Amino acid sequence: MSTALPTYADVDAAAHRLQGHAHRTPVLRSSTIDALLGAQLFFKCENFQRMGAFKFRGAFNALSRLTADERRRGVLAFSSGNHAQAVALSARILGMPSVIVMPQDAPAAKLAATRGYGAEVITYDRFTEDRMALSARIAGERGMTLIPPYDHAHVLAGQGTAAKELIEDTGPLDALFVCLGGGGLLSGCALATRALSPDCRIYGVEPEAGNDGQQSLAAGHIVRIDTPRTIADGAQTQFLGDITFGIIRRDVTGIVTASDAQLVESMRFYAERMKMVVEPTGCLSLAGARHGGIDLRGQRVGVIVSGGNVDMARLAQLLAAG
Amino acid sequence: MSTALPTYADVDAAAHRLQGHAHRTPVLRSSTIDALLGAQLFFKCENFQRMGAFKFRGAFNALSRLTADERRRGVLAFSSGNHAQAVALSARILGMPSVIVMPQDAPAAKLAATRGYGAEVITYDRFTEDRMALSARIAGERGMTLIPPYDHAHVLAGQGTAAKELIEDTGPLDALFVCLGGGGLLSGCALATRALSPDCRIYGVEPEAGNDGQQSLAAGHIVRIDTPRTIADGAQTQFLGDITFGIIRRDVTGIVTASDAQLVESMRFYAERMKMVVEPTGCLSLAGARHGGIDLRGQRVGVIVSGGNVDMARLAQLLAAG
Repeated sequence: MSTALPTYADVDAAAHRLQGHAHRTPVLRSSTIDALLGAQLFFKCENFQRMGAFKFRGAFNALSRLTADERRRGVLAFSSGNHAQAVALSARILGMPSVIVMPQDAPAAKLAATRGYGAEVITYDRFTEDRMALSARIAGERGMTLIPPYDHAHVLAGQGTAAKELIEDTGPLDALFVCLGGGGLLSGCALATRALSPDCRIYGVEPEAGNDGQQSLAAGHIVRIDTPRTIADGAQTQFLGDITFGIIRRDVTGIVTASDAQLVESMRFYAERMKMVVEPTGCLSLAGARHGGIDLRGQRVGVIVSGGNVDMARLAQLLAAG
Repeated sequence: MSTALPTYADVDAAAHRLQGHAHRTPVLRSSTIDALLGAQLFFKCENFQRMGAFKFRGAFNALSRLTADERRRGVLAFSSGNHAQAVALSARILGMPSVIVMPQDAPAAKLAATRGYGAEVITYDRFTEDRMALSARIAGERGMTLIPPYDHAHVLAGQGTAAKELIEDTGPLDALFVCLGGGGLLSGCALATRALSPDCRIYGVEPEAGNDGQQSLAAGHIVRIDTPRTIADGAQTQFLGDITFGIIRRDVTGIVTASDAQLVESMRFYAERMKMVVEPTGCLSLAGARHGGIDLRGQRVGVIVSGGNVDMARLAQLLAAG
């Protein structure tokens, strides 16, 4: 690691920038799950965040740090998921232009939603074009700032405000479960948790089909894998970032995995018992708490519910299947 | 009306009794709906209340007012819906026996859930037995106190704490929308609103298929109708109560109706945009705000989301249909 890692001071600064822009999402409880696990669970509901996921925190924080000149030129992101909408919405709020690079075969609803947030959408052919090269070229031509989805100090510091708010509301925790894709949410939450609840154990939860995080911790360096086949579309990353891995290897207690069947079980639990819609990736944390083999009895456990953006037809299908 | 109507003091007393037992449910926002209606909407999310509906407030308040002797003998309710589970759960918390009288052909899941809350379930044949006579007989034999679902001062005072909390969180409102079945929630919320936000207009919303409330207001006396055919199963009441009507006719601005199609539209909106599960009856308030013909532009509008107890198969079916 050549650069210094971000610290809790960056999370704290992000919290000030987000005030009045991000929702302070509620922390919900369920006596059913408490009885089931013999623990007290505290659910930080980022599915109720603006645009439906924690990603708004990181994108808004990163964009709000740009200089007047950078703001004028605007920002660019490549993503077909929550990061795209987070950047588009943040740019609109901050009055700057944005370009989102998306595959031309992305669902029409996602293309429309991103345009609905005011972004210019530029599509590419996934089979013949390299999105990173395309994005770099557009960014260069227009002088736009590229906003990466996770491996960025201001992005992950923004994500960490979710854990900061959670612990402010609940007091110290014994364990915290966070979904793990590229590591932005996990590393940011780790910074906040180490500062505010130092003895809390911190667990990342990734899809069983793609445990690159687990492999990376074991190997002591970033391990790259093929794109995992899982319903957790927000965690289909192939590798951690340099910055996120630096924080994760230092601050995170361990990484556990969850199967797609366990994600569906958690999704149904959330809908049936807690009356909320959680996207498959957002179910990782609870699935990891339930099935990750960590003894939680008698403990105070935080669960970050990362987002709720799931297509209604897909939601209906997954709920009906159980 | 022979007896004096309950007042805001009863709602305030209920709030103290509920402290530490009922959830203080969150108030959520949606910029999408605000833009659509040109107003600021504040959603009081009683779908996140214990047992999934506001009914816990009223039942717990009523049970907590019983004498030591009455507590020892226990309570009885007849209901196949949220009131049954609210009474069962409240009785368990307060350490008293409870009997719930339910039709023997009630869904197995509901029978099991009610037993799961610790109640003794006594079933009857809907075609040959009179549940009120049966309930009165059991209550008499065992010395149990019958807890009616809405026409009861302590029940409706408990329900009113939902509006009390809402207005405490939001400040004064210009309009409030509340679902209307027997009138417990509406009348309790009216007491709280008249005290805390006196200029706020208050609207009840009932199913188009069963507008007995609207008819009763117009007639100046309680009008009885046949059980309405609507997906809003919590509002399939045939008539208002004496106490609830007394408050409603005095304090409520008007009653509007919503069609089943409008309820489904709101249900999908809640799931897709606000990431929450709302039962059909709980969708009445938003459907009334959207389609009730009330001009809300530029106003601050409260919407009570009454509950989230809907069968997963049914939810999947309604979400997929859109």
